[in-house]
Amino acid sequence: MNYGIIRYIIGKVIEIEGAFFVIPVLTALVYHEWSGLGVYVLLACLYMFAGFIMSSKEPEKKEFYAREGYVLAALAWIIMSILGAIPFVITGDIPSMADAVFEIASGFTTTGASILASPEPLLKCNLMWRSFSHWIGGMGVLVFLIAILPSGGGESIYIMRAESTGPSVGKIVPRIKQTSKILYEIYTALTFILFVLLVLGRMPVFDAICLTFGAAGTGGFGILADSVASYNTYCQVVITIFMLLFGVNFTFFYMLLIGKARDAFRMEEVRGYLAIYCAITLLITLNLWAQNGHFMHQLQQVSFQTSSVMTTTGYSTQDFNAWPQFSKILMGLLMAIGGCTGSTGGGIKVSRILVYVKGIIKEISEQVHPRRVKVLRVDGKRVDDSILRAIYIYLALYTLIFVISLVIVGIDGYDWETTFSAVLATINNIGPGFGLVGPTGNFGMFSVMSKLVLTFDMIAGRLELIPLFVLLMPDTWKKNG
Amino acid sequence: MNYGIIRYIIGKVIEIEGAFFVIPVLTALVYHEWSGLGVYVLLACLYMFAGFIMSSKEPEKKEFYAREGYVLAALAWIIMSILGAIPFVITGDIPSMADAVFEIASGFTTTGASILASPEPLLKCNLMWRSFSHWIGGMGVLVFLIAILPSGGGESIYIMRAESTGPSVGKIVPRIKQTSKILYEIYTALTFILFVLLVLGRMPVFDAICLTFGAAGTGGFGILADSVASYNTYCQVVITIFMLLFGVNFTFFYMLLIGKARDAFRMEEVRGYLAIYCAITLLITLNLWAQNGHFMHQLQQVSFQTSSVMTTTGYSTQDFNAWPQFSKILMGLLMAIGGCTGSTGGGIKVSRILVYVKGIIKEISEQVHPRRVKVLRVDGKRVDDSILRAIYIYLALYTLIFVISLVIVGIDGYDWETTFSAVLATINNIGPGFGLVGPTGNFGMFSVMSKLVLTFDMIAGRLELIPLFVLLMPDTWKKNG
Repeated sequence: MNYGIIRYIIGKVIEIEGAFFVIPVLTALVYHEWSGLGVYVLLACLYMFAGFIMSSKEPEKKEFYAREGYVLAALAWIIMSILGAIPFVITGDIPSMADAVFEIASGFTTTGASILASPEPLLKCNLMWRSFSHWIGGMGVLVFLIAILPSGGGESIYIMRAESTGPSVGKIVPRIKQTSKILYEIYTALTFILFVLLVLGRMPVFDAICLTFGAAGTGGFGILADSVASYNTYCQVVITIFMLLFGVNFTFFYMLLIGKARDAFRMEEVRGYLAIYCAITLLITLNLWAQNGHFMHQLQQVSFQTSSVMTTTGYSTQDFNAWPQFSKILMGLLMAIGGCTGSTGGGIKVSRILVYVKGIIKEISEQVHPRRVKVLRVDGKRVDDSILRAIYIYLALYTLIFVISLVIVGIDGYDWETTFSAVLATINNIGPGFGLVGPTGNFGMFSVMSKLVLTFDMIAGRLELIPLFVLLMPDTWKKNG
Repeated sequence: MNYGIIRYIIGKVIEIEGAFFVIPVLTALVYHEWSGLGVYVLLACLYMFAGFIMSSKEPEKKEFYAREGYVLAALAWIIMSILGAIPFVITGDIPSMADAVFEIASGFTTTGASILASPEPLLKCNLMWRSFSHWIGGMGVLVFLIAILPSGGGESIYIMRAESTGPSVGKIVPRIKQTSKILYEIYTALTFILFVLLVLGRMPVFDAICLTFGAAGTGGFGILADSVASYNTYCQVVITIFMLLFGVNFTFFYMLLIGKARDAFRMEEVRGYLAIYCAITLLITLNLWAQNGHFMHQLQQVSFQTSSVMTTTGYSTQDFNAWPQFSKILMGLLMAIGGCTGSTGGGIKVSRILVYVKGIIKEISEQVHPRRVKVLRVDGKRVDDSILRAIYIYLALYTLIFVISLVIVGIDGYDWETTFSAVLATINNIGPGFGLVGPTGNFGMFSVMSKLVLTFDMIAGRLELIPLFVLLMPDTWKKNG
């Protein structure tokens, strides 16, 4: 294990977390929240100083492989969550450390699950930090570091692999540093457009900033108790469309930018993503329409919730927990599927589902015709066996973590719907589930033990499981390893 | 596709189903149920005659591969279920054909899920046929045919593969015909011992026969409304032990018989099976003890329910639906795990879980140390890559069927617990689930559509998914295939 380089980059992460506090600091200034201002300024200086010390000595050895990448990603996210929680505790807005870590981990992992009954009593600077954490976590702080740090050596590929989402790394251009820059540029541009559109729709500027961060990172923290329900229809429709956009593979936007629109629209994952979205939106709309009438109204409302849940954002304009069972099961399905590879969305990812279903058909077809070997292709390219195996392992780990979490959270004794959907909503980084953790509920009532497990699930889900397992394997820490 | 041989063997299956009616015929005679007697005698003659005609012409071609094996198994089980349902409909005990097919498919697949609020009003001959179907389905009617038919050509291996449970075929001795004979001998012997022990415990002979069939096949149809609750503790303990035994890999018993006790007790699957059973029984006992006291009583009761659920039998002496959530989640877990390969139990099977967990550890370890390749071993033998892939595909299919069933059964609009556990309990061939389909409930309230889907799940679960998929693939039926 190359401890030197890990220490160095973790130092940079702490430094940059301090620098990110500039956003809540500005907010506190604007709203004259002097206590909040003091806390954030003090912590910003402290973190930047500590980070500077830690990363002042350049690492000696340059060896950096997959293992180091995983350990680094896991540690960085855990440390970010702990340090990010401290302002909540000191300002007294969320006095319990376990609650505060849950809340900010939910922010960074773009889950959006909250332990608060209502976010409204919070200081504006805390609300802003909460929403901004979505934006940072959406594309990833390590990817950000790769984009801005001068080095860009051999380690970037392993770091990118450990932090990015989806079964294969989203290398858009041959150089990793360039790729992360492009990703952040697209991300920033889309974020800015959404903000402008919301302000044009007469949303207050503060609200527009927070909701834009939450939608861009597919996070989902609202700043009002009723999430997005009280904004006007125009704003809801704009958010619906942008949530969907942030759940698309960012390679799609890059292709559009360089004029390859035809190739972009041929991407199987993007097509699959839109097909699943449209099909399930239509089914749920029909289900609600049959029950309550008003087709167009239902369509607008449903398209918002399905967009929010499939991209794992978690905003809501309606309590979908009160929908009929059939619609709820379809929503549960969307929660698990999630967005595209290389988007800010969570979940299992459409590309994995695509390969997985194609894999089943291929295998059964080979059972039927043993001598006819089919090749598994996505976008015309052969899917390597190692990717296929990685997907199976991912799904196996997913099931394993799911079951273990279910058993531990089950000790709290809440009903099936609540327990099951609490795990589902955190491991897929969605936010609200069903039952007591539905859109009108929150995660406050769980025991500290359950909160820790669910926090683990959020980080495991965001980093796609492997990094945390590698961190916990005794093998990783053996001397001669 | 070799239609000739499929027609020939299906004919034999129909013939033998007619012959099996001798058991309800004898029951009807003993209890003077003349209407039942007439129905069963008439149908027996009809089936035997039809089967005889169908299989009178020996097939010309001998080609028989995996595809034919799967199609044969799927067709045989569907036809057996439809023909087996007819006596219930004609005698008027279960007037609806959809209900009757559900009930007998539940019998053959050793599920034990019932659409009846109480089995008590049924004719004794129908009760006996219901329970006897568990015994037939437990080891499999095609395996039975292999044991008794003179041929035993190249097709037996493919038939055995399609009908037997577990990831690798349970070839105990090199010859398949011999293997199936040994399996049926062990099965019959254990069944007989259980029957004697129950009669010695003063259980009425009729009850003892029915409950023995149900326990041996790990089916679970009771003949009283309260399942096994009203029998004495001795009988309950005997059934607990025998359910556990029937969930063990039958190779274990064969090894004991040929004096290889040491090897038998070293079988990793058997050890894993007992370890999981003991651990979860203890956890649930502690959970109930903390709540209600009486450790020994709880242990006796819990060990019965866990044995019943893990072996996917489905008898009950208590309403485990009323247990605390933690215990219910553990029960749900046991339901999915199931028994051993090559036992009469259903579920995913301990061996698959074993390979699956070992596979995860191996893969993560290879991520950590890319140059150190681990070999996956079970019982000291290397697990072939093809078996590993088959297990991944099995789990993928399992999830797929689960999700699709959930969506369709969800249309009926029952709560999460009921919908989810109805699918869980049928696909794993358990019987009772939670909520409305808990030990005190039944499956009668579902729509015909849901009953069809759940019937499909039962057969898919019993045949371990692949055969029904192969049957439904258009590719299978192409002319030049």
